[in-house]
Amino acid sequence: MAQLARLTEQGFIDLVASLAAPARRSRRGAAFRPILGIGDDAAVLPPTGRLRLLMTTDLLTEGVHFRTAYAPGFLLGRKALAVNLSDIAAMGGLPRAFVFSVGFPRGTRPDYAAAVARGLADQARRHGVQMAGGDTCAARALFLNVALLGVVEPGREVRRSGARPGDGLYVTGRLGGSAAGLRLLRRGARPGRTGLSPHAAAAIRAHLDPAPRALAGRLLGATGLARAMIDLSDGLAQDLPRLCAASGAGAVVEESAVPVAPAATAVLGRGPGLRASLVGGEDYELLFAARPEHELQIRRLALRMRLPMSRIGQVVPRRQGVRLLTRTGRYLPFEDLRGGFRHFRAGA
Amino acid sequence: MAQLARLTEQGFIDLVASLAAPARRSRRGAAFRPILGIGDDAAVLPPTGRLRLLMTTDLLTEGVHFRTAYAPGFLLGRKALAVNLSDIAAMGGLPRAFVFSVGFPRGTRPDYAAAVARGLADQARRHGVQMAGGDTCAARALFLNVALLGVVEPGREVRRSGARPGDGLYVTGRLGGSAAGLRLLRRGARPGRTGLSPHAAAAIRAHLDPAPRALAGRLLGATGLARAMIDLSDGLAQDLPRLCAASGAGAVVEESAVPVAPAATAVLGRGPGLRASLVGGEDYELLFAARPEHELQIRRLALRMRLPMSRIGQVVPRRQGVRLLTRTGRYLPFEDLRGGFRHFRAGA
Repeated sequence: MAQLARLTEQGFIDLVASLAAPARRSRRGAAFRPILGIGDDAAVLPPTGRLRLLMTTDLLTEGVHFRTAYAPGFLLGRKALAVNLSDIAAMGGLPRAFVFSVGFPRGTRPDYAAAVARGLADQARRHGVQMAGGDTCAARALFLNVALLGVVEPGREVRRSGARPGDGLYVTGRLGGSAAGLRLLRRGARPGRTGLSPHAAAAIRAHLDPAPRALAGRLLGATGLARAMIDLSDGLAQDLPRLCAASGAGAVVEESAVPVAPAATAVLGRGPGLRASLVGGEDYELLFAARPEHELQIRRLALRMRLPMSRIGQVVPRRQGVRLLTRTGRYLPFEDLRGGFRHFRAGA
Repeated sequence: MAQLARLTEQGFIDLVASLAAPARRSRRGAAFRPILGIGDDAAVLPPTGRLRLLMTTDLLTEGVHFRTAYAPGFLLGRKALAVNLSDIAAMGGLPRAFVFSVGFPRGTRPDYAAAVARGLADQARRHGVQMAGGDTCAARALFLNVALLGVVEPGREVRRSGARPGDGLYVTGRLGGSAAGLRLLRRGARPGRTGLSPHAAAAIRAHLDPAPRALAGRLLGATGLARAMIDLSDGLAQDLPRLCAASGAGAVVEESAVPVAPAATAVLGRGPGLRASLVGGEDYELLFAARPEHELQIRRLALRMRLPMSRIGQVVPRRQGVRLLTRTGRYLPFEDLRGGFRHFRAGA
């Protein structure tokens, strides 16, 4: 790691740890300050009492999930934690502590590595999660792995399996922005460059710097409004069938009810924008099912949070499959969209 | 991942999960069966009650920590978990659940990947730890990351910082075998090949398949016998100064008391064997400090466990530094050995 000389492996870990230390009075992380942080064989964290533990891990790899050519180190560090925070949110949990591993290629510039550390630490502070350890190593391609621990009240974890026929299907936020941003990045657009339209900038931000729906997931879980939930990492066309399979149910989604991100429409055009909202992936919004009688409460929660929660369709018996009702009144099986997903990604 | 076609990414995760599922009546893991295993956004694990949490992560990378040319997939999988189990042992904790991430190069043979999965699962079953999630991805070089969660009674965690002047310094097992094994592997020896002497086979096993001192660490912690503890991953010459620095103390180690693995002496010769026991690394034995009045209890524990626990020296005031008392009566600062460490590794 010749280029990393000034930022040694231990230096990287220490940098994340020092920057990620929460403010003395953290709203959410206060109760979970580590008893012993980094520097020993393992971190020591306080007992969870009666709370259940949640554990998840996600890996970002150069050339597969991102390219250093277009992903600033700071945003890469933030995203590595964000995708894990999104998983804990989708369980209705509260994130608590994480460990990371980073592999740096020999040519990595120290300022890029330092930016990754700052991004990780920034996201940790925002969400009140503790940095509990790290490992770094030389690697042939840059990768960044995070394992995140969370907690949830017993029985309040929101699984994928709780959806029942008759339930409404909802998504938070708007979809397709991330896919539109990826398209722009692959065509040479860069974040922060002057001359980007507001829509282009929003799309790029959606892709490089997704905001995990931590509070929404927590509230949807704690209130019991979400009976089943999943985060949209691979896109509606893949993640809705997963939720349905786990629940032993089918679904009908109304194409006209899917909330397409304005940036997706502006960047890609109306048709491809809609397509991106179905098959694009990496939006990290939440998809959840709720009893029909909770419709009003969900509207109120959305208003209070100033976060769109769109009813996109409903859960149906399994034998009806998972289908999209198009604007022209046709029913398309979601499997057929997945083919389109691969096509779309290849062309993006 | 063309070559991995028959073992898809999800297939790898499912394979580890199915093989790692503990027997119905596991001695140690029974109380920590997951409430929800893999297949959702996060695993759900039972509350820890009043127990504190331990969290650690360790990464093995091809070309840095191992070479696929000499590391069978099964042993690589076992080692990835072993090095983390060693960290939890060194805290006096009980390992509970882990997540992993694997990056496979495109050319990885499916049977190699499957062997890695079997090795991970085998080690998990042996130690009663739960597989709580995984992520796999294409990568340019094979890497395997594990994040491990453990528990420990409040205040019973054994830190590096508890050593005080007058304490005895002990190591479990014997040292230097792993370095001897690495030397043989780099010179073309392969595990399981016929014609290996028993010592050569033992050395290779020590390097490729280290046995974490899980039970010893647990007992040394729970009994309160170990006041400070660290696992020997980088070798005595690096890890003892770490323990001393954390404790604000110095140490004198008697060269003649260091337990050199017979395999190290046989493979490397007497002088280099001793050297390997000091600077070799990757033995994953435990180094701990104990009050002088506990000497007898430690002897008894070692006898009962049939595990050598050698008193190699004692803790002294910080100003005396960390020194080796050689057989010829000279005092060598440990820093001077570290130079030798680099030299040794380069030559190995």
